[in-house]
Amino acid sequence: MKIALMMENSQAGKNSMILESLNDVAGSLNHEVFNVGMSDENDHHLTYIHLGIMASLLLNSNSVDFVVAGCGTGQGAMMSLNLHPGVLCGYCLEPSDAFLFNQINNGNAIAMAFAKGFGWAAELNARYIFEKAFSGPRGEGYPVERKEPQIRNADILSQVKAAVIKDDYLDTLKAIDQDLVKTAVTGERFQQCFFDHCQRPEIEAYVRSLL
Amino acid sequence: MKIALMMENSQAGKNSMILESLNDVAGSLNHEVFNVGMSDENDHHLTYIHLGIMASLLLNSNSVDFVVAGCGTGQGAMMSLNLHPGVLCGYCLEPSDAFLFNQINNGNAIAMAFAKGFGWAAELNARYIFEKAFSGPRGEGYPVERKEPQIRNADILSQVKAAVIKDDYLDTLKAIDQDLVKTAVTGERFQQCFFDHCQRPEIEAYVRSLL
Amino acid sequence: MKIALMMENSQAGKNSMILESLNDVAGSLNHEVFNVGMSDENDHHLTYIHLGIMASLLLNSNSVDFVVAGCGTGQGAMMSLNLHPGVLCGYCLEPSDAFLFNQINNGNAIAMAFAKGFGWAAELNARYIFEKAFSGPRGEGYPVERKEPQIRNADILSQVKAAVIKDDYLDTLKAIDQDLVKTAVTGERFQQCFFDHCQRPEIEAYVRSLL
Amino acid sequence: MKIALMMENSQAGKNSMILESLNDVAGSLNHEVFNVGMSDENDHHLTYIHLGIMASLLLNSNSVDFVVAGCGTGQGAMMSLNLHPGVLCGYCLEPSDAFLFNQINNGNAIAMAFAKGFGWAAELNARYIFEKAFSGPRGEGYPVERKEPQIRNADILSQVKAAVIKDDYLDTLKAIDQDLVKTAVTGERFQQCFFDHCQRPEIEAYVRSLL
Repeated sequence: MKIALMMENSQAGKNSMILESLNDVAGSLNHEVFNVGMSDENDHHLTYIHLGIMASLLLNSNSVDFVVAGCGTGQGAMMSLNLHPGVLCGYCLEPSDAFLFNQINNGNAIAMAFAKGFGWAAELNARYIFEKAFSGPRGEGYPVERKEPQIRNADILSQVKAAVIKDDYLDTLKAIDQDLVKTAVTGERFQQCFFDHCQRPEIEAYVRSLL
Repeated sequence: MKIALMMENSQAGKNSMILESLNDVAGSLNHEVFNVGMSDENDHHLTYIHLGIMASLLLNSNSVDFVVAGCGTGQGAMMSLNLHPGVLCGYCLEPSDAFLFNQINNGNAIAMAFAKGFGWAAELNARYIFEKAFSGPRGEGYPVERKEPQIRNADILSQVKAAVIKDDYLDTLKAIDQDLVKTAVTGERFQQCFFDHCQRPEIEAYVRSLL
Repeated sequence: MKIALMMENSQAGKNSMILESLNDVAGSLNHEVFNVGMSDENDHHLTYIHLGIMASLLLNSNSVDFVVAGCGTGQGAMMSLNLHPGVLCGYCLEPSDAFLFNQINNGNAIAMAFAKGFGWAAELNARYIFEKAFSGPRGEGYPVERKEPQIRNADILSQVKAAVIKDDYLDTLKAIDQDLVKTAVTGERFQQCFFDHCQRPEIEAYVRSLL
Repeated sequence: MKIALMMENSQAGKNSMILESLNDVAGSLNHEVFNVGMSDENDHHLTYIHLGIMASLLLNSNSVDFVVAGCGTGQGAMMSLNLHPGVLCGYCLEPSDAFLFNQINNGNAIAMAFAKGFGWAAELNARYIFEKAFSGPRGEGYPVERKEPQIRNADILSQVKAAVIKDDYLDTLKAIDQDLVKTAVTGERFQQCFFDHCQRPEIEAYVRSLL
């Protein structure tokens, strides 16, 4: 899998710690990691709002397969990512959250809390979350005998989201304040990941039109 | 405040316990509670998908001021409620979550986990969450000196959601599989709460058209 | 109640924050607070080992009625306090822990984690723990119909501890490396609390003999 | 390692679930598991008091190398085990607790909560705790540069415990109500584990004298 890590301004100082844990775990499992958000407190400034737009672009263009996002409590990131079509973001505070989200919801993003509850030795918990998020099969239900209704409900949730949201994907982006989108796509590491791997020319064209 | 409690099939057996805690706390604070979801396992069958539709109708029609929803992990309820325009649902696993959500996000719904992490004596934690959710001022930021950027970001999040979602509220409901909406509005206690307090005639007319 | 707060070196920098929360809560409930451990990182140096000895002296001499201790994970403090006769220390990570410890164990000390899990806004959780620790009745069992076996087991636990430990209280202190005890009793605020309120002359005489 | 699992009456119904997780994890790591407490609600009746005596006998006689104990909140088990000489029991609510206890305290027992916080899917958390409790090196400190003071404090804690407790090990057992000890040693699976592996003849003789 190609995995994008994206962190915003409030916890940017923890990026190197989280990136190291993610690289250790994902590397040993042959996944590739792209650090597309803030790398330190002086980096191109992003909020959890921008993370949602970035995740939307990367996932809907198949630039990456999975997004790890986060903010202080993780709730801003989770709400922001879940606004967008094609993004299904779980909330992971401890390792079993990651396992259950993979089995039951089989989504493509997780949001983590990098400040609330993140005290001494919390890097261990982050590492263990990554271990469960990126190993083993997915979409098997939990417990396995509940697979059928769990998948059915996840599918209905996606249909309701699709019904509520505008029909055309690019229309959802164009309706957003374009300054927000532009800020979201301005980071150098984001652009490298997106332009190197984007598989949807119309999304790439839209992003290039903003720059 | 008028507060709606809504629980789905998997944890319906815990409704009386949760309702009692909510009534105790909300009653002592002069709030009014409406138990609009499943009251036991044999009640009109609802999933977390229906809870989202119910919350959408009750909040957008000003039938109630606040919704307490939940499911096994609370994540299905939280994602389902947040899909809808006019619903801003936080995720509360412990009391400070409720306080922080009130101060920082100032939303109108919370989702709780009634199975995962809900072991012996968990009714105490639910009660303490309610104590913090329904007392004191709201929207003051936390810490207070962070009020301005916190409110600004919450506001931008609402704008992005409005941009992504269809423009007309009733269009979002009509685009959903109407069998889902019909099931969502069929419960007797839901209807009593909604028809007694609905302040938006066009929403009421739409709901009546389904019955 | 007279309540002693005692913190050790690793988290001494958080003393003013914790003391403020404890004073707010305890003050509003008419309890008196004594800050007998480290007040900042340059204060008289204490480890969780010393906290155990200090709690032993204060509680066995009735100088205070209750001790709030803590360290990074809280486990060192908890184990250290529980070594001593007459000290029954619970471990409190969240508010219901405090309520349950009061009802079921009815002990005289709690240990808290001031680093692990202590991230952004954790001062709220500390405050809520104090709210439940210092209000309401004690020793009523939880649920109340389990009061009888809960009290019986707590009583048997005390008997086993008394059996395992040396018979004479001062012998337990004198058997410890006396440099440890001396360091434990050297702090100025500890001495003020102890000498002002000690009700056991033989314990006071022993402490004075070390100085 | 030889690992003893011991559960008491209140959570005996969960023994098969916990034993299965422990066997899976420990088996794959070439450890041997002995299920020496209650196997179901009708088994020989034990409380957390008895677990402490059982752990004391098994560890001080080198019958086993490690004990996994638990009760509803885990606090009764933890306090009860820690009363006894030669038993150093950590409290593990989530996986990083187990890792940190191994590195910092390097004890020989853990206590777990099998009711409080033990809701749906909690068997996953138990499994992950076992994964971290029984793999990798021990006693290395965390972070590693803190190894020296962490080991020193753990060592001082042991010295204080030894000072407070009676000098002769068998005297600690003989001072306890002998009916408690007899009940603790009466279970068939306990006896098989103890008599097959006991390496201290004087402890075995004492136990046989009770039967």
